[in-house]
Amino acid sequence: MSKVGDIYEKLVDLGKRRGFFWPSYEIYGGVAGFIDLGPLGAILKRKIMEKWRKFFILRHQDIIVEIETPVINPSIVFEASGHVEHFTDPIVECTVCGRMFRADHLIEEKAKVKVEGLPPAEMSKIIVENDIKCPICSGKLGDVKLFNLLFKTTIGPYRGNVGYIRPEAAQGMFVSFKRVYETMRSKLPLGIAQIGRVARNEISPRQGMIRLREFTIMEFEFFFNPEKPGCPYVSEVADKKIRILTGEEKIKGGKPIEFTIQEALQEGVIVNEWLAYFMSLATELVSELGIPLEKQYFDEKLPHERAHYATQTFDQMVEVSRWGAVEVSGHAYRGTYDLHRHAVYSGQDLRAFEPYPNPKKVKVVEVVPDRERIKEVFGDKAEYIIRAIMLQKGEEVLKELREKGFIEVLETKVDKDLIKIVELEKTVSGNRFIPHVVEPSFGAERLVYVTLEHSYSVKGDRVVMRIPRDIAPISVAVFPLVSRDGIPEKAREIYESLKKVPLYVIYDESGSIGRRYARADEIGVPIAITVDYQTLKDNTVTLRNRDTWEQVRVHVDKVTKAVVDYIEKRVEFNELASY
Amino acid sequence: MSKVGDIYEKLVDLGKRRGFFWPSYEIYGGVAGFIDLGPLGAILKRKIMEKWRKFFILRHQDIIVEIETPVINPSIVFEASGHVEHFTDPIVECTVCGRMFRADHLIEEKAKVKVEGLPPAEMSKIIVENDIKCPICSGKLGDVKLFNLLFKTTIGPYRGNVGYIRPEAAQGMFVSFKRVYETMRSKLPLGIAQIGRVARNEISPRQGMIRLREFTIMEFEFFFNPEKPGCPYVSEVADKKIRILTGEEKIKGGKPIEFTIQEALQEGVIVNEWLAYFMSLATELVSELGIPLEKQYFDEKLPHERAHYATQTFDQMVEVSRWGAVEVSGHAYRGTYDLHRHAVYSGQDLRAFEPYPNPKKVKVVEVVPDRERIKEVFGDKAEYIIRAIMLQKGEEVLKELREKGFIEVLETKVDKDLIKIVELEKTVSGNRFIPHVVEPSFGAERLVYVTLEHSYSVKGDRVVMRIPRDIAPISVAVFPLVSRDGIPEKAREIYESLKKVPLYVIYDESGSIGRRYARADEIGVPIAITVDYQTLKDNTVTLRNRDTWEQVRVHVDKVTKAVVDYIEKRVEFNELASY
Repeated sequence: MSKVGDIYEKLVDLGKRRGFFWPSYEIYGGVAGFIDLGPLGAILKRKIMEKWRKFFILRHQDIIVEIETPVINPSIVFEASGHVEHFTDPIVECTVCGRMFRADHLIEEKAKVKVEGLPPAEMSKIIVENDIKCPICSGKLGDVKLFNLLFKTTIGPYRGNVGYIRPEAAQGMFVSFKRVYETMRSKLPLGIAQIGRVARNEISPRQGMIRLREFTIMEFEFFFNPEKPGCPYVSEVADKKIRILTGEEKIKGGKPIEFTIQEALQEGVIVNEWLAYFMSLATELVSELGIPLEKQYFDEKLPHERAHYATQTFDQMVEVSRWGAVEVSGHAYRGTYDLHRHAVYSGQDLRAFEPYPNPKKVKVVEVVPDRERIKEVFGDKAEYIIRAIMLQKGEEVLKELREKGFIEVLETKVDKDLIKIVELEKTVSGNRFIPHVVEPSFGAERLVYVTLEHSYSVKGDRVVMRIPRDIAPISVAVFPLVSRDGIPEKAREIYESLKKVPLYVIYDESGSIGRRYARADEIGVPIAITVDYQTLKDNTVTLRNRDTWEQVRVHVDKVTKAVVDYIEKRVEFNELASY
Repeated sequence: MSKVGDIYEKLVDLGKRRGFFWPSYEIYGGVAGFIDLGPLGAILKRKIMEKWRKFFILRHQDIIVEIETPVINPSIVFEASGHVEHFTDPIVECTVCGRMFRADHLIEEKAKVKVEGLPPAEMSKIIVENDIKCPICSGKLGDVKLFNLLFKTTIGPYRGNVGYIRPEAAQGMFVSFKRVYETMRSKLPLGIAQIGRVARNEISPRQGMIRLREFTIMEFEFFFNPEKPGCPYVSEVADKKIRILTGEEKIKGGKPIEFTIQEALQEGVIVNEWLAYFMSLATELVSELGIPLEKQYFDEKLPHERAHYATQTFDQMVEVSRWGAVEVSGHAYRGTYDLHRHAVYSGQDLRAFEPYPNPKKVKVVEVVPDRERIKEVFGDKAEYIIRAIMLQKGEEVLKELREKGFIEVLETKVDKDLIKIVELEKTVSGNRFIPHVVEPSFGAERLVYVTLEHSYSVKGDRVVMRIPRDIAPISVAVFPLVSRDGIPEKAREIYESLKKVPLYVIYDESGSIGRRYARADEIGVPIAITVDYQTLKDNTVTLRNRDTWEQVRVHVDKVTKAVVDYIEKRVEFNELASY
C-alpha cells in the first residue's frame, strides 16, 4: 500500500521532530484518528484559516457573516438533519475474535467489487458468496450492520437527554438561520459561516492526518432566493479556470476537464452561479497554498456517492503522493432540505420573506391537510407530516397530486384524500419561501496536510519546505554570525523589533551559520537575517531567500518594512536590495 | 435574585436583536448552558483571543508556544488527571418527581449554611436535619451523590473504549509535554498554550453566558525547574498594581487589598514569580477590555475551594451587575501533580533534563521498590505505585520514611518494608526532574460578557456600547448623507477601500443620519464616516467619535490611515484633524 519513502513518511518524521503534527496520546500508545498540531502546525493552520476568512468572509462581509455555535447538540438537531438515520457506515463483526471492520472496505479489498451505497443485506450476501473471513483470525464474519458515526453523549444528569457531537458545523447555521437573518435585517442572499471543531466516529481510521475522528471544519451555508439564483460576482471570475471530473466523464472512466467558470455554467456542468463562484474562489485559495491548478480538480459526486441532502456535489481534490488524491473541500447544493426539515421538526416558520414594492392581488393555491385523518393514518409522525405538507408551495402540491395521486414528504407517501386544495384570491404583501442553500465546506487539517506535502522539496542534501511565504509558520529567522563582539546584542534588537510587528520570529545562535540556515529551511522560514561584522560598520544585514538561497543586504532601519512587504507578497525578493 | 433592569437583561435583548449572542437551539426551546455567538459576538471573541495571544504568546514566543490537541480524549487521560474520580458536583434526586438538583446550592439556599467541599453523606444529613424537600413538588429527596461533570462518549465501535470531552485544555499540554519539549530543543522554562473548546456537564446551569456547558478556554501550562523559579520579567512589572482578596483576609470577611507585584511577592502573598508576572499581565489584559482596576481583583482560593491538583490558586474576578463578581481567569500553581500522574499512568519518563557543564560525582540516594511484595499488597494498583515511588527524589523518600515510617504516593500509604534505599556514589551528567507548572487559564465567553457589560452606557436616550476601539467588532461605519447625487458611489469607494485593509466595516444608507449613528453606537462602532455634499467639493469626509460624538473632517486619501491609526490606538481622535 504505502510506497517506501513517499512524502507522507517524511512529513510524519519531520512533523514529530520539528513540531508540525504528531499522533495524539502518544505516551498512551495513541488513539487512531486523532492528531495534535505542534507549535508550527498550529500557526500554519491558523494562517490558512485567516486566508480562508479573507477569501470568503472579509471580501463579502456585507452578505457573509461568521457565527459560533456549540459542538454538543441535543438529539433533535440530528434527528431533523437526518444524521441519526443516515450518517452511518457498514460494519461487520467477526463472530470469533469480536473485531470489527468497515464492511465495504473489506469487501472491496477481498472481492474486488465496488459496493458503496449497497444495503447491508446485500453486503452480507457478498461476504457469504465470496467466503470472506476475518482478516485477523480467519473467523466467520457476522451480518453487516450500519454503525452510526455520531459521537453520542448525555446532556445534564437525566439519562434520556441524548446529545451528539456535531459531525459538521452546518446544522448550527440552519438552526440559527432565523435569528441571524433577522439581525442582518432580513435580507438575502445571506451566507452564515463557521469555523469549528467537528467529530466523526470512524470505524477504523488509518490515514494519519487525512482520516481524522476529530478535526476543524471551515464552512458556510449560503442562503438565496431560488427565484433569484444569479451571482453578481460571477463576471469577475468568468475567465478563471477550474478542472472538473464531471459525473458523465467519471462513469466513462475519463479524466478531469479544464473549464472556465463561464463555460462550466453555460454547459450546465455546474447548476448554480453561486456554487460556481465559490468553486472558483476555492481553486484560487488552494492555489495560494502552493498547489498548482494541474494538481487539483473537482470530482462531481454521482447520485449514490452524494450525501442524503444534496442535489449536486463536487469534492475538491488535491493530488498527494500516497493516496492519489484527497478531498480538501466539498461544494454541495443542499436546496431547501435542511431548513425544511428543521421547520418541520421545530414547528417554527423558518421561511424568508421578500416584500413586494406594493401588495398584490394574486391567485393562491392553499394546501389544507386533513389533520384528523392524517393522525389516524400516521400516528406519532402526523404532526411532522402536517407541517411538512403546509411548508410545500401550493402549486407544487397540486401538480404532484395530479400527476401521482399522492405527495411525498419526509420520505412518506401522503394520499390525495388526506389533503384538501383550496384555490382563492388573496392580497399578499410579499413572497414567503424557504431559501435554497449552497455549501462550501473545507477541512482545515487536510489543507494543512496538502500544503505541507506540496511544500516539500529537496535541495542538495537538505529538505526545504517551500511553504508560501504568507502562511509560513515562522516568517523570519535572525542569526548573529558569531556569539561575540556585540553581534548577538544587535541581532537581539532586530529580533525584538520584528516580534513587535507582531511576527513569528526565531532567534538562533547555536551551531554554524550553515546549520542554522538548514534548520530554518527545514521548517520553511522564508527569510533569514544574518548580523555580521559588516553590520557593525554600516548597519546593514544580510537577508537570505529560503527558496533560491540568494542574499541581499538591507539597512537595519529598513529591515522590518522589507520583511513585512516580502512576507505579505507586496514585493519580490530581489526588490529588497533597493530598500 | 435578578434585579429588574440590570444590565444583563439589557445585554440579552441587545445580544439577540443585534447579533452578539443568544441561547442555542432557540427553535427547539433551547438547552440550558449553551449559547451561540452571533456575527458581532464572534468577531468580538476573536479580537479578545487575538489580544490574549499577543499578551501571552507573541511577546514570549521564544518560551511560550501554542499547540492544538483533541477535544475528545480516551478515558486514561482523565483517569490519570484525577478528573474521573474528582471532577464531580453533589447531586440530589427527588424520590417523587425524579428531578435532580445541585445538592450544595439547594442546601445553601434553604438552610443558609456553606457546604462546599463537604462529603455527600454529610450533605444528606443536613438535608434530613433541615427537612429540605424538592423545591418543585415538595417530595422527599434521596441521598446526595456525586455526579461526574465529564461528558462521556465511546471512541470507535467497541463499547469498552470510553472517551470524554475535555473539561479543560490543560491535559493536552501535559500529555504532549515531552514531544513539545523536544521540538523546543529540550529547554526550560517552556510554556505550552492552547485555545480551544471544552465542556463541563453542569447539573442545571442558569446564568446565561456565565455558566456554560461548553465554552472556549485560553490557557497555558508554564513548565519550569523548581530550583530556578525566578522570572526575569518580574522587574518589568514590579510597580504594576493588582488587587488581591487574600485567603487570610477572606476568612476575616475582609476586602481585596491593592499590592504592587513586588509587594505581593515580598510579602509572600503570591508564592511564585511567574505566577505573579502572569497575574500582572492578566490584570493589564482585562484593563484593556475596558474594565478598570477597581472593578477587578484576585480571589485567593482557600484549601477546600481549590481544585485537587493545586497548591495555590487565584481566581481573577470582575464585578458585574447581576452576580456581584464572576471569575474570568484562574491562576493555579499545579506543582508536579499532572506530569507525575501521567508518568505513572503511562509508564513514560516525562522528566526534563538539564545537563551540568561537566559530569559530577555525587552521592545518590536510590529508591528500590520491592516489586514482589508491592504486587502482593496492592494487586492491580501495584504497577502504578512502583512507578510513582521511582519518580520520587531519593532524598525526599528517605526523609519521609524516617519521619513517618511510610511514604504516600497516589493517595496510598506504602510501608517502609516495601522500599529499599541504596546510597551510592555516581557520576551524573545533569539534573533529571519533573518540572513545576503554573497555569493561567481564561474563559473566552466570560471575557466577552464582562467586556460587553462594562461597555454598556447610556447617552441621552441611546445605548452606546463603548467597547474598546481595538476590539470593537465593527471598526468603522460608512454613511452617505443622502442616496443621490453621486454620494453613495463615493461612500461605496471608501467602504471598499476600508474592507481591503482588511477591517470589519458596515455600509448603511437607510434612514436618517441620526438613526444610522444610533444604530452604529448601539453595537459600539468606534468611528463613523459620513460622505456629504462637501465631500464632492473638497474630497473631505466627516469622522465621528462614538464616545464623544465629536466630529473632524479628514481628506479621503487619508481616511484609511486615520481609521487604522485610531483603531489601533496609535493616535487619539482629536489628532485625526491634522491628518
